[in-house]
Amino acid sequence: MSMKVNSNNNVVIMAGGVGSRFWPMSTTAYPKQFIDVFGTGRTFLQMTYDRFKGLVEPENVWVVTSKQYADIVAEQLPDMPRENILLEPCRRNTAPCIAYVSWRIKSKNPKANLVVTPSDHLVTDVVEFQRVISSALRFTSETDAIVTLGMPPTRPETGYGYIQADMQVPSLRNKEVYRVDSFKEKPDLETAKKYLKEKEFFWNSGIFVWSVNTIVNSLRIYQPEISRIFEDLLPYYGTDKEQAMIDQQFPLCESISIDYAVMEKAYEIFVIPANFGWSDVGTWGSLHTLAEKDDHGNTVIGQNVKLYESRNCVIHTTEEKKVVVQGLDGYIVAEKGDTLLVCKLEEEQRIKEFSAE
Amino acid sequence: MSMKVNSNNNVVIMAGGVGSRFWPMSTTAYPKQFIDVFGTGRTFLQMTYDRFKGLVEPENVWVVTSKQYADIVAEQLPDMPRENILLEPCRRNTAPCIAYVSWRIKSKNPKANLVVTPSDHLVTDVVEFQRVISSALRFTSETDAIVTLGMPPTRPETGYGYIQADMQVPSLRNKEVYRVDSFKEKPDLETAKKYLKEKEFFWNSGIFVWSVNTIVNSLRIYQPEISRIFEDLLPYYGTDKEQAMIDQQFPLCESISIDYAVMEKAYEIFVIPANFGWSDVGTWGSLHTLAEKDDHGNTVIGQNVKLYESRNCVIHTTEEKKVVVQGLDGYIVAEKGDTLLVCKLEEEQRIKEFSAE
Repeated sequence: MSMKVNSNNNVVIMAGGVGSRFWPMSTTAYPKQFIDVFGTGRTFLQMTYDRFKGLVEPENVWVVTSKQYADIVAEQLPDMPRENILLEPCRRNTAPCIAYVSWRIKSKNPKANLVVTPSDHLVTDVVEFQRVISSALRFTSETDAIVTLGMPPTRPETGYGYIQADMQVPSLRNKEVYRVDSFKEKPDLETAKKYLKEKEFFWNSGIFVWSVNTIVNSLRIYQPEISRIFEDLLPYYGTDKEQAMIDQQFPLCESISIDYAVMEKAYEIFVIPANFGWSDVGTWGSLHTLAEKDDHGNTVIGQNVKLYESRNCVIHTTEEKKVVVQGLDGYIVAEKGDTLLVCKLEEEQRIKEFSAE
Repeated sequence: MSMKVNSNNNVVIMAGGVGSRFWPMSTTAYPKQFIDVFGTGRTFLQMTYDRFKGLVEPENVWVVTSKQYADIVAEQLPDMPRENILLEPCRRNTAPCIAYVSWRIKSKNPKANLVVTPSDHLVTDVVEFQRVISSALRFTSETDAIVTLGMPPTRPETGYGYIQADMQVPSLRNKEVYRVDSFKEKPDLETAKKYLKEKEFFWNSGIFVWSVNTIVNSLRIYQPEISRIFEDLLPYYGTDKEQAMIDQQFPLCESISIDYAVMEKAYEIFVIPANFGWSDVGTWGSLHTLAEKDDHGNTVIGQNVKLYESRNCVIHTTEEKKVVVQGLDGYIVAEKGDTLLVCKLEEEQRIKEFSAE
C-alpha cells in the first residue's frame, strides 16, 4: 500500500548546535549532528531526515544551520534542494531560527503544516514515531494548536526540561492529545524523582508540531520585534537577495529560545505523550547506554579496536585508527583527528573543561 | 684545549633492530633507534653518534642497518659519509653484521681500532663515557684484547645478560681492565638477586672495543665460514659492486650473535666496569624511570598533553596531537600515526601480543 504524502507537510531540522559534550568526537568545526556516532553509516542529521521519509517530500524538508555547516548539510542530504538550507549568520537560539524558517515556508505555502525537530537526537521506533507525527500533523492541520511531544520519563533525569500535562481530559478531537499545564526547567534530583513517580510529567523532546499560521501568529503576539524582522523580509524570500538580507537583519534579533519566547506564554499548548525510543544522546554515558555492548559492557565504535581486560568502556575512534586498550574499567577513549581523550565516564560532565583551549 | 682525534678510531653503530617492545611509538617501519623518545630533539641514533664527537672523525663512523632504513640514517646523520652506511639485505643477528663492517673497515685501514655499539641505548654521563671509551681504545690499540663494557647492576634485572669478571687482579697495562670469567644469559630473579649482592657481576651493555685485526682474527678462528664470505669480498669493498655482492653473499651467513659466535669462545676477553648512566631503555617502564616526571610521577612526552587526576603514567604522543587524560594511575598512553595504545605499565611485557596484527 502506498500512501499519498500530504504536500502541506514540512519538517524543519534545526542543525546549528555545536555538541560540546561529545568532544573530541564532536567539535565546533564538525559537531555531533553531522557525525555517524553509532557507526551505522548514517549521521544524526541523516537519521533525522530518514525518519520523515513517506511523511514529508524532500522539497518540504528544511534545515536551519550556521553558515559554516552549509556544505556539510548539502553533502549529507543530497536529495533535499540546496535552497532549503537556511543559513544563520550568527547564533540567536531557537526563536529567531524558527521565526525565519516559518516565514520562509509561509511565503511558499501559507497552508504549510510543520514539524520542528532537533537534528541530533535518536529515535529507535521509527514506525511509532511516524504514527505519532502523523497524528499530530492531522491535529494541527485542523486546529490552532501548538503540539509538543512528551516522552514518559524512565529515570529521574536532571538534564532535560519537563512538560506537565493535564491528564484529566484528552482532546475531543484526538484522544492522545492533552493540554499542557506548565513547562518545567531542568529539575534537581529530588524534583526529578518526584516527577518520575507522578504520571503527568514528560521529558520535553524539543519536537514541536504546528501549522505555519499558528506559529507565525504566536510569534506576532509574543515576539513582535522578531516577527517584524522576518515579516519585513517577505519580498526577499526565495530570491537571490534573501541571504544578504538575512545576514543584515538576523543579528538584530534577541537571542531567546522558543520555549521562553512562545511556549511558556501561549495558551493553546498541547502535548502528545509518546513512546518511540527517544534519546537526545547528549552525553558519552547515554551513548554507552544506547549503543550495542560486548559481553563486558564495552561499546566499541571503530573498525580496528582490540580490548583486553576492559569493561564498561566507550571506545570511539575513526575507522582508520588501530587501537589497543588494556585494563580500563568505566572509561571513555575517544579519538578524532588530532585529538585524544581518555577519561572516566563518571567525569564526563567535565569534558567542556577538558576541551577548553 | 683541542684534542687531536686519533684517525684510527672508528665507531660501528648497529642500527638494524626493530624495537618491538616500544610499540606503537616504535614500529618496524620506524623503529626505536630513529625516534626522539625523550622529546629532546635528538633520536637515539643521533645521541649515539653525538657521544663519539671528539673521539672519532665523522668519516670513521659506520652504521650497519637494514636496507629499508638507509634513508632514515642518512637523513638523521647528515655529517657522516653516505658510503659509511652499510646495508644488510636481511637480518642475521650481530655476528655477520660485525664481520661485514670489520672487513669493510680493515680494507680501508688495517690499523683501525673499533668501538661497536648499539644504536638505541641511553648514556647520561657522556664525559665519563668518553673517558672510558678512550681508555678502552688505548688498551686495544696496544693489545689483542676484546674489551666489553660492564655496567655495575643497580637492581636484580632479569632482562639483561651479565658478565662475570675476575676482580682479583686488574690488567697491569690498565688498572680498570679485568679479565672476564664468563658470560651469563638473562638470569631468573633469584639468580639476578645473587648477582646483585656479589661485586663481580656486570650488565652486558653490548658495547665492545677491539682492534680490527683482533676481531677479524677471532672471527677467522671461531667463525671460519662467516669469515670466508667477507674475506672473499675484499676486492669489492668501496666499489660500486659492494652492495650487489653483499646482497648475494650476506644471506648465506648463519644467523648468530657475536656473544655466541666469539665472546663465549675467545680467551683474551676483558671487561671495564663503567658507570656512565647507561640504560638500554628497553621498555616503557624504563623510559618512565629515566625520563623527567611531574609532581605526580607522570612522564609526558608531547607538546599538547593535559593530565587530570593522573599519576605514574607515561604519555607519549606526536607533537601535533592534543591529548586529555583523566583519572589514570600507572598507565601507558602512546599514540603514533594511526595507532593508539592504552595499557597498564605493569602489563607492558604483553605489548608484542597487543601489537600483533
